[in-house]
Amino acid sequence: MTMLRFALAQIDTCVGALAANADKTLEYAARAARGGAQVVVFPEMTLTGYPIEDLALRATFRKAAWQTANDLASRLAADGLGELFVIVGTIGTDRENGKPRNRLVVLHDGVVWAGYDKHFLPNYGVFDEFRIFSSGDRSVVLDVDGARLGMAICEDIWQEGGPVAALAEQNIDVLVTINGSPYEEGKTDTRLQLCRKRAAEVHAPVLYVNQVGGQDDLVFDGGSFAVDADGTLLERSPMFVEDLTFLDIDTKAGKQQVGSVVDVMDADQQVYTACVLGLKDYMVKNGFTGVCLGLSGGIDSALVAAMAADAIGGEHVQGISMPSMYSSSGSKDDAAQLAENLGAKYDVQAIEPLFNAFQNQLHLEGVSAENLQARIRGVIVMAYSNSDGLLALATGNKSELACGYSTIYGDAVGGYAPIKDLFKTKVWQLARWRNQALKNGIGIGGLPIVGNDAGSAGITPKSGEIIPNNSITKAPSAELRPGQKDSDSLPEYALLDQVLAAYIEHAEGRADLLADGFDEQTVDTVMRLVDRAEWKRRQYPLGPKVSALAFGRDRRLPVSDAFRE
Amino acid sequence: MTMLRFALAQIDTCVGALAANADKTLEYAARAARGGAQVVVFPEMTLTGYPIEDLALRATFRKAAWQTANDLASRLAADGLGELFVIVGTIGTDRENGKPRNRLVVLHDGVVWAGYDKHFLPNYGVFDEFRIFSSGDRSVVLDVDGARLGMAICEDIWQEGGPVAALAEQNIDVLVTINGSPYEEGKTDTRLQLCRKRAAEVHAPVLYVNQVGGQDDLVFDGGSFAVDADGTLLERSPMFVEDLTFLDIDTKAGKQQVGSVVDVMDADQQVYTACVLGLKDYMVKNGFTGVCLGLSGGIDSALVAAMAADAIGGEHVQGISMPSMYSSSGSKDDAAQLAENLGAKYDVQAIEPLFNAFQNQLHLEGVSAENLQARIRGVIVMAYSNSDGLLALATGNKSELACGYSTIYGDAVGGYAPIKDLFKTKVWQLARWRNQALKNGIGIGGLPIVGNDAGSAGITPKSGEIIPNNSITKAPSAELRPGQKDSDSLPEYALLDQVLAAYIEHAEGRADLLADGFDEQTVDTVMRLVDRAEWKRRQYPLGPKVSALAFGRDRRLPVSDAFRE
Repeated sequence: MTMLRFALAQIDTCVGALAANADKTLEYAARAARGGAQVVVFPEMTLTGYPIEDLALRATFRKAAWQTANDLASRLAADGLGELFVIVGTIGTDRENGKPRNRLVVLHDGVVWAGYDKHFLPNYGVFDEFRIFSSGDRSVVLDVDGARLGMAICEDIWQEGGPVAALAEQNIDVLVTINGSPYEEGKTDTRLQLCRKRAAEVHAPVLYVNQVGGQDDLVFDGGSFAVDADGTLLERSPMFVEDLTFLDIDTKAGKQQVGSVVDVMDADQQVYTACVLGLKDYMVKNGFTGVCLGLSGGIDSALVAAMAADAIGGEHVQGISMPSMYSSSGSKDDAAQLAENLGAKYDVQAIEPLFNAFQNQLHLEGVSAENLQARIRGVIVMAYSNSDGLLALATGNKSELACGYSTIYGDAVGGYAPIKDLFKTKVWQLARWRNQALKNGIGIGGLPIVGNDAGSAGITPKSGEIIPNNSITKAPSAELRPGQKDSDSLPEYALLDQVLAAYIEHAEGRADLLADGFDEQTVDTVMRLVDRAEWKRRQYPLGPKVSALAFGRDRRLPVSDAFRE
Repeated sequence: MTMLRFALAQIDTCVGALAANADKTLEYAARAARGGAQVVVFPEMTLTGYPIEDLALRATFRKAAWQTANDLASRLAADGLGELFVIVGTIGTDRENGKPRNRLVVLHDGVVWAGYDKHFLPNYGVFDEFRIFSSGDRSVVLDVDGARLGMAICEDIWQEGGPVAALAEQNIDVLVTINGSPYEEGKTDTRLQLCRKRAAEVHAPVLYVNQVGGQDDLVFDGGSFAVDADGTLLERSPMFVEDLTFLDIDTKAGKQQVGSVVDVMDADQQVYTACVLGLKDYMVKNGFTGVCLGLSGGIDSALVAAMAADAIGGEHVQGISMPSMYSSSGSKDDAAQLAENLGAKYDVQAIEPLFNAFQNQLHLEGVSAENLQARIRGVIVMAYSNSDGLLALATGNKSELACGYSTIYGDAVGGYAPIKDLFKTKVWQLARWRNQALKNGIGIGGLPIVGNDAGSAGITPKSGEIIPNNSITKAPSAELRPGQKDSDSLPEYALLDQVLAAYIEHAEGRADLLADGFDEQTVDTVMRLVDRAEWKRRQYPLGPKVSALAFGRDRRLPVSDAFRE
């Protein structure tokens, strides 16, 4: 029997924060050693953060990262952790052409061991790795007390052939993979099935350690795990929190003992938590401690406010009601009720005097006058942001963003847009889920989020709900003219969201959409709206990707584009 | 003697406009035939437009493009042009894996001849071709009446090896390259030297046909040319206009006769014209016929207004003076004079009443109050845009954009930003150049721009200058508080622009900048400003790339990024 104890260190790093990332690595390595681990495995590009994008092209960055890895190896040894095998990701340099490489290194005995370089460089969807890295060209096996550990980095296990195929011939005892795999709905199972396949291929257990945390428009969900050679799930770490879990592997045994396996989170909770974590980490990594946003009484701003309260505590949320002459009293009440439920700060800023002042000069009509109202609100939200150092939140959803059903520089202002990747029907679903979660005892601030220490866990709003039921059930309206309803301009959301999913997420064309059974008028309307709104989307704030295809770098289309099929 | 007459068809296409691009190809092919050409060469991805980005991933698009190529071949034959060899670019499909390919096809005798697929897929800078295409893997030689024409697409000639190296072994008579090479300063000479090298390599003349026109943030400058096997320049087409030039090549001769060689445009004129064409084509391709912008009396808005007048004629430019309590009378006069010089529409909208209305509610101070003024102006500019269907122009320059020295949703509003890639020092230089050009007889509307038929060529402003000299010579100020100067917050532009060029365009780090001799305080200030403004740049409008490294897809850096070295 040759027992090896692994520690899966699922940590949240920040791009470019070399010192802080190294400090955290040291801390987790010490905990791993205290727990008896011989090997501790960290996520892809641990020291540099991930994804680093064009920072890879800066020579001073590569040099500093190299120094960080060396310093960390020394510090580990100085702290008595030299015997531990510390597997971390960082940036390396191709010796032949000087290009950056996505590298795994092993810190041991005070030195940085020669590493393994990522072979397959993802360059689809949100990924641009072929842009910045050169490919590694050899597989690596690490010997730990006679046990043979094969190494792979993220995309290496998603493609056939390459290093995993090579390792399959090398009689390895464990396949260790370090990952920076962003969250999207349904990916937990995809990863598991993938690792089962690779385990069968290499005839050995597979360890999958994933990063956790928000990084701009990506949210890494952690959810690290291990499978046995026969596909049995041996370990699963929780999602959306930093974690250190141990797993014992007997490299001479044909079958391993099952360790700690956390239940998979409910799908709605996953998406909700991803949005909360995306926001939370954007704030932490950019130095914000509070947010401000317009509260219209509608469902979008209500959900965003609830997410913000879950991220940082209701007392750090500044809600601003900005009623116009067309705002219903119900909407104003709903906004106030929401703020009370959340324990948020709440101000009312009427826009009618401002609207009148502009109209004295501009005499706008129709949509221009509607946009004016929205833009006055944008100015007010940004005034709060500037005056109080608050992160302004844009509250647009994916349906709205798709169709351009928003006012640029109006309701679209902000530094972060937490629900930009949620279709409207999903917004309602998550609002209902959040209220239900409250009833099930998950209080605001009680969600399992990295570093969530600002919230007031367990607050139970007097009304027994977080998001006022009115906001969920009433017909959606921008309230920019009397009696206005979203359905005046758009198909009903239940239909719209289906067309949008097909057109955007599945890249279907007009003929495909018609073959799906959508009627011609709806298809033509939706395609026209989506295509014409591209320029607005380009100027929309960042927000977390939670679907298979989000707007932003996941979907790169020209603004000047005449194709209508 | 085997004489072949080539026509170099340097055309402006629009992404996705399959029918219009095919119509234009047919028109130029007919002209080529009338001029006696046997071979007419069009730019890269003629039929689809370029770059198509993720449109490549839509199956209906690939199918429609295929149909377009076939229809065009039939139409050519029907029009009696079947004997002509028409070399066009389009999208193809990899037979093995179904992936899109960047393809050259030859239309002849009513059919689409088997094509050549681009081998090297650029995936750096502004290019994302590895993302969307698979690589071609064979070289192609076209036989035209016994003459052997080798084929290459753009990046194929920029890399060593690959198809050109293969063609060097195949005894070709001419190397034909079709290109979508975006403009940047100095690239004309780089391309020429490159083609001289390839000509020597294949022992044959090289034809380089480049696309012309603006496509979102890229401007293609045309400037097609041909070099002889010994590097002699045989032909050069004009820059920034559509063009059809003929060139005779005797495939049995060791040396060719020199044809039409246009002089290279002055460097300042190149950059100025690139900005004008970028704007012009953005308007044409997105259905705009007029623009609006704030005229502050400062140099940035003055230069943008002049460019707009050059693009579409002064009468289609709506200038808006929006003085505040801090605007100097000189600034107001300069704005009015500029509008008069350009023949632009000109309105004055005082912002003080609006500012006071906001301040009655918000009581802002300091920078927040400054931003409020800028945002009120943004609301006004967008009101003109919405009411009159005008394209709003943002007037920020690259220095400002780099340092975040602008108000988001304020002066940063707009659908296009013509000078976003010009450092402030370059803005002054081009303003001086434009005034001088007027004296040299280049009137407004008289610039050689594609499809420029809206301008009033030859207008000579009464003042003898286009941009008021005051706007060029006065110290730059945002005029958002009494006596404010840009130099209160920023290093002097002459210094700032040098640091910015090193940090941004050359990806230098802190140590490099200090080694360059810049003082520590300046370096730290500039780096901090640039890094902190990334979130604002993400929301900035599109504008034409004219430098080696523009903001936008050319420079992809995280917002959440703690690296400060």
